[in-house]
Amino acid sequence: MVEVPLFVQNRLRSTPFSEKVAGYKPVYTIYNRMMLPSSYGSLEENAHHLKTAVQVWDVSAQRQVEIIGTDAHKLVTMLTPRDLTKAEAGRCYYAPITNREGGIINDPVAVCLDENRFWLSLADSDLLLWVNGLATGLNLNVQIFEPDVSPLAIQGPRAEDVVARLFGEEIRAVKPFRFMRCAFHDRPQVVARSGWSKQGGFEIYLDDFSLGNALWDAVMEAGKDFDIRPGCPNLIERIESGLLSFGNDMYPEDTPLECGLDKFCSISEDGHDFIGKPALLRQQSEGFTKALRGVHIAGKPLAPLAHPWHCWLDDKPIGEVRSAVWSPDLSSNIGNAMLNAPAFTLGTSLRVATPEGDRQAEVCTLPFV
Amino acid sequence: MVEVPLFVQNRLRSTPFSEKVAGYKPVYTIYNRMMLPSSYGSLEENAHHLKTAVQVWDVSAQRQVEIIGTDAHKLVTMLTPRDLTKAEAGRCYYAPITNREGGIINDPVAVCLDENRFWLSLADSDLLLWVNGLATGLNLNVQIFEPDVSPLAIQGPRAEDVVARLFGEEIRAVKPFRFMRCAFHDRPQVVARSGWSKQGGFEIYLDDFSLGNALWDAVMEAGKDFDIRPGCPNLIERIESGLLSFGNDMYPEDTPLECGLDKFCSISEDGHDFIGKPALLRQQSEGFTKALRGVHIAGKPLAPLAHPWHCWLDDKPIGEVRSAVWSPDLSSNIGNAMLNAPAFTLGTSLRVATPEGDRQAEVCTLPFV
Repeated sequence: MVEVPLFVQNRLRSTPFSEKVAGYKPVYTIYNRMMLPSSYGSLEENAHHLKTAVQVWDVSAQRQVEIIGTDAHKLVTMLTPRDLTKAEAGRCYYAPITNREGGIINDPVAVCLDENRFWLSLADSDLLLWVNGLATGLNLNVQIFEPDVSPLAIQGPRAEDVVARLFGEEIRAVKPFRFMRCAFHDRPQVVARSGWSKQGGFEIYLDDFSLGNALWDAVMEAGKDFDIRPGCPNLIERIESGLLSFGNDMYPEDTPLECGLDKFCSISEDGHDFIGKPALLRQQSEGFTKALRGVHIAGKPLAPLAHPWHCWLDDKPIGEVRSAVWSPDLSSNIGNAMLNAPAFTLGTSLRVATPEGDRQAEVCTLPFV
Repeated sequence: MVEVPLFVQNRLRSTPFSEKVAGYKPVYTIYNRMMLPSSYGSLEENAHHLKTAVQVWDVSAQRQVEIIGTDAHKLVTMLTPRDLTKAEAGRCYYAPITNREGGIINDPVAVCLDENRFWLSLADSDLLLWVNGLATGLNLNVQIFEPDVSPLAIQGPRAEDVVARLFGEEIRAVKPFRFMRCAFHDRPQVVARSGWSKQGGFEIYLDDFSLGNALWDAVMEAGKDFDIRPGCPNLIERIESGLLSFGNDMYPEDTPLECGLDKFCSISEDGHDFIGKPALLRQQSEGFTKALRGVHIAGKPLAPLAHPWHCWLDDKPIGEVRSAVWSPDLSSNIGNAMLNAPAFTLGTSLRVATPEGDRQAEVCTLPFV
């Protein structure tokens, strides 16, 4: 794991939970110009703990774009190949956002608060500017802003137990990608069954910065019988689970089709209109020349990837590995690679240039588990 | 200076100069999702060196938004209260970009390459998404993208000597905020007399990532007689000089008028149209209730500000200091503060809550020198 020192300035925003988190001395990343803890000691120990117990994650850096007004639903449906024309209040939708070329510029979860009120819970880009630019250009009747809403995630097999202690047993009935409103300090909070792991859990969309310390303490208290610990999106677990990271695995030059996100998309002549539809219809009929795949990289454990690793097929450059880590549970180095044809064919054997020398790799489907 | 460890991932982009820079072990910041060195050892020694010699700065993180096409000039003039209707090729224009509410969403330098071809050399936000969103909404005939262009700045009183050695004596005739094209490895490069210090200097807009090492080495060789060293925007020098930092000093909730950027703006009923004009016309006639000011903070040297420091006037909260540092040359703690009326009146005496205790502060004009 490559670490360098970071100079903390005002521009790199603190979160409602920063004071609490700092005591655990995480290594950070910067995400939406905000501090995001990205490791607490050993990645391997944390992956194991996430899979067996419960963790609390400061994911405030998943900033929200709030869209409200008579044109809000219309605007949201234009933003994504996901068909949100029948979006229902109380549900959350993973929704890749595309530009005119069909490229992915963010992949938020769209939280439908009301027929004409949405939050887009962001990956790492200023989607606020895109949505605002569009609405300005189209002169739509909407207000678009970043509300004071900072998600705190509770993830892991015991997450439901912790959240039930906090907010009552009825939370257990909430289905995946649905939310209910739960009171905290007399304020209703959106609590969704969601989160950036496949270990189960909830996200509490705290809507008052000043309640951060109180919520953190309440979660830690509710979880103490379940061995709750601070955690964060875990590189090992998320690669194993096939959770793609915008900016790491997917760039604006890549389309949802190339990234294997077809199942979240409705791209058809008579389907809903959205930005990038002509480009994606064309790609759907003509096929694509690059695709995101899993790779198993041979040999002993590699340190997590810090910069893309080039790939060769028969000494021809053929793409790059964009995320990689050693998985103790799979006893393999695993990664996500954007590969040109024909290298993206499953079972292809590649050569990968890692900082620890060239390695053989085999192309596979995602997810790994 | 508050430092924490940063986990280096692919999402945090390297620059063409990262390999060279890494050898000098800087402390980094993240800017436009790219590595930006933000200190090399002592801030005070580096400020002194910048004022007396010459430095080379990896400011690749000032990413470009390229706007090209028959509607390019029309679009650029809409983006900013700066009147760019008569923009000339070969010139650079500091241009605050405003949203519908008149708030600042970036403050790039607009490089006019040709009548209908511009680069916006960015501060830290995804202006690419704003410009693209607008153009999509308005259905304009433009292409908008991030080119492979990474600025390397040469700053300090001996910068002209270094650049003249590199590119020839004619560069000395280039006036501030103008550029000429200079060959490097047989490629013409935009070389502008500009940069984020007030010590004089140039920015080389390198348009080929693969030439990064060669350019760095050439600059270091050309500067060795002038005591050239790696540097970066210096917190002390830039606050002394009144250079405002978007994200640190100015937020999207602040207007150019509140930030004292009037001299770059043309806001009048019969002037050019731009996004945010109605809001700014209103503010111009009604006046504003908050303003950015300098503050001299009493007492012994304070560590650089990491998070805003609240200000009080007669025990009433009245604003916040957003950047602050000890200036050895001025023998004072100096900072930039956003202050509500009446605290922004020059000479007002405030109380500032710093991590090192409450201090008295006096409101002053910018710049400090």
